[in-house]
Amino acid sequence: MAQKTSIPKGTRDFVPQEMMRRNYIFETIRHIFERYAYLPIETPAMENLSTLLGKYGEEGDKLLFRILNSGDFLDGVDLNTDSKKLSTTICEKGLRYDLTVHFARFVVQHQNELTFPFKRYQIQPVWRADRPQKGRYREFFQCDVDVIGSPSLLNEAELLDIVDAVYKQLGIRVVTKINNRKILAGIAETIGAPDKIIDITIAIDKLDKIGLDNVNEELSTKISAEAIAKLQPILLMKGDFPQKIATLKTTLANSETGMKGVDEMVELFDYISDLNLDMPCELDLTLARGLNYYTGAIFEVKAIDAAIGSICGGGRYDDLTGIFGLKNMSGGGVSFGADRIYDVMNELNLFPEHSVIGSQLLFVNFGHAEARHILPVMKRLRDKHIACELYPDKAKMQKQFNYANANNIPYVAIIGEDEITTNTITIKIMQSGQQQKMSVEQIVDLLSKHEKI
Amino acid sequence: MAQKTSIPKGTRDFVPQEMMRRNYIFETIRHIFERYAYLPIETPAMENLSTLLGKYGEEGDKLLFRILNSGDFLDGVDLNTDSKKLSTTICEKGLRYDLTVHFARFVVQHQNELTFPFKRYQIQPVWRADRPQKGRYREFFQCDVDVIGSPSLLNEAELLDIVDAVYKQLGIRVVTKINNRKILAGIAETIGAPDKIIDITIAIDKLDKIGLDNVNEELSTKISAEAIAKLQPILLMKGDFPQKIATLKTTLANSETGMKGVDEMVELFDYISDLNLDMPCELDLTLARGLNYYTGAIFEVKAIDAAIGSICGGGRYDDLTGIFGLKNMSGGGVSFGADRIYDVMNELNLFPEHSVIGSQLLFVNFGHAEARHILPVMKRLRDKHIACELYPDKAKMQKQFNYANANNIPYVAIIGEDEITTNTITIKIMQSGQQQKMSVEQIVDLLSKHEKI
Repeated sequence: MAQKTSIPKGTRDFVPQEMMRRNYIFETIRHIFERYAYLPIETPAMENLSTLLGKYGEEGDKLLFRILNSGDFLDGVDLNTDSKKLSTTICEKGLRYDLTVHFARFVVQHQNELTFPFKRYQIQPVWRADRPQKGRYREFFQCDVDVIGSPSLLNEAELLDIVDAVYKQLGIRVVTKINNRKILAGIAETIGAPDKIIDITIAIDKLDKIGLDNVNEELSTKISAEAIAKLQPILLMKGDFPQKIATLKTTLANSETGMKGVDEMVELFDYISDLNLDMPCELDLTLARGLNYYTGAIFEVKAIDAAIGSICGGGRYDDLTGIFGLKNMSGGGVSFGADRIYDVMNELNLFPEHSVIGSQLLFVNFGHAEARHILPVMKRLRDKHIACELYPDKAKMQKQFNYANANNIPYVAIIGEDEITTNTITIKIMQSGQQQKMSVEQIVDLLSKHEKI
Repeated sequence: MAQKTSIPKGTRDFVPQEMMRRNYIFETIRHIFERYAYLPIETPAMENLSTLLGKYGEEGDKLLFRILNSGDFLDGVDLNTDSKKLSTTICEKGLRYDLTVHFARFVVQHQNELTFPFKRYQIQPVWRADRPQKGRYREFFQCDVDVIGSPSLLNEAELLDIVDAVYKQLGIRVVTKINNRKILAGIAETIGAPDKIIDITIAIDKLDKIGLDNVNEELSTKISAEAIAKLQPILLMKGDFPQKIATLKTTLANSETGMKGVDEMVELFDYISDLNLDMPCELDLTLARGLNYYTGAIFEVKAIDAAIGSICGGGRYDDLTGIFGLKNMSGGGVSFGADRIYDVMNELNLFPEHSVIGSQLLFVNFGHAEARHILPVMKRLRDKHIACELYPDKAKMQKQFNYANANNIPYVAIIGEDEITTNTITIKIMQSGQQQKMSVEQIVDLLSKHEKI
């Protein structure tokens, strides 16, 4: 009669060793967000489908998880239809799909409670009915940081500073590619194909992957030969930052938008130099990013030592909240993908030892009398923020030591009759096997040094 | 064309001031769970409906949120049926309903990766299609701590110790009522109505609310007059702990189960006395708790200074994982309801001042040159874990100070030409209005004292 246990495909359980590592990432990111004075918000897992539909394109609509209406959901429903139409009749709610659209809805709905510029961070799971595959899940966490209600380029600089601080703290070497949508628009304008900016950015985005010839070929189905010819100096552009800026200033001289993008880029790189970031930041015109709401700077962060693609991205948007009726709210944000960061850190063995230690000290259980002696001792240690535990049953020593090993507990405490009499505790260091009699105060000293962040 | 913004009824957005308070609760609970060496796990928001259906009773089945199958969910489905049957055909997944059943499923599924006794904590939202009302939401958070795979009563003692530590740390005065299901079973057995234990516990549970006469009347429809007469000494029992235990030992002398329950109660109270808990713990035979999986000790925690009902509860279960095929796994757990704790703390004004401070220091923006001077200064402060920010735009002073006030920022830093020349910073204490010139080092000293836990 026992039921088989399984979970839906694309979802995951997290066992403690994974959770501790994941929490280490989340805590690191959260502390840094807070240090930059971003404030936490949360939105519900369930949103009205009317909020979500049409915001992620046709493909996104398909990938939204829908929640069946409660009660008699068939009441008054015409079943003589297809599943697409029926799904919006019998489901009014859908699961959170990203954090950006939900943030936009939140800002509009709470605009009178918030003070602008509003700097928020949000760390929550999202759900997508994507086909599950290695590294792609149907439930995954996003860590987003956004500022809205300020056009200042200091915001872009701050976002990059946050990216730098996060990866420095996590020990992941990264490089950040920076581009500007206004420059891309300026290019489209300059070559005489202003309505083809999407096609051009998609093509430029493929430059690294398929090479110049294929890009030109692909472009030939979208824009004129003349336009392609005008685009070549941009595609072939080389050199350091000042050289690239000089080329752009020449090429885009007749495009107001393009020149504004160049000015923004120069100002942003000024701030980057003031901030003395650890990570290299590179102007990269091949960076386009798929999301259409970006209007200025766009960033993409890659891990140097792992072949995993982008592990963070973001940029400036000028009208994120327009769709919900709030105009003139320029802002920008960056999103960290916790699952990819986890994979990179595991691959490069970057998790510090203390991040996977739960319990620091296990007291061996010799029976009722000893246990009663140990209870107040543990209380003293826990008051000093030391994570410790008493094996709950009077089991064989070997079993208790196995428990310590399996749970990665670095110290085992032995309190028998002798220790009770002398009011000491014998501590065994599991790694070395060494034993030593200590007082509670000495144990506090020993273990406080190992305290977690 | 602007879209109206709203969220599904029974769900909530959390603005920063709420989030900071909520995080304060979650962090406090989490740190205490960790100090007692419980390890974190998480389970997916979506579970197979086959895992959930039938686990929460008929009412629970109705309250489960169901997720519509992706793709063409109507393919091969017979629509000629009622909504109840159709819902299980077109929905294979449901949302997490509590943490206990999900934990049981997790333990069975991962039994070969875990070391027993397994001590886990889990802090996640759950969803129920309940009718929303004041204090009852369709999305709310549970904070559960459980140990499984150990029959020792030290576990019950530890759970109570955790309850005590949590509420002490949060500043909520509580009293804990303790009962034991074996004593209740013993009572049912003794009065000759062993199959009526559910009816009796439900009736006893109402004693406080409807009074002895009504309880007796209600019982008369369930058990014989003789049984009701035998039950009276129990219902009328008074006195301190030893007196109650003495009465129970006399009354239940012929019930093996009942006497085992009494022994467990005595042993548990021994440990409670060793632990020297702050909260009073009372033996309370009127406590029954609705959940059927409890088999030994049961607890319920009430706030002394707020009329809100139970803010925490738990107990011992012997066969939680049996339904998923893993027998002989005795365990116990306690569940903290974060939303009720939040309401109590708000009502009693218990949130410490530092819990609602995000940014500690706002730098006024006087323009480009000053901003560039401030960027590296902020970096030094943030490296010392101080949360600070530069107002991103060169706005009017009043607007910038309003921002500081609205965001509860205690200090504002002014760096003008004079300060740049003398390499100082003028700090304004917002509460007092006092101003003082300081060095970066002095600011670090000042603000490090205010650091959050």
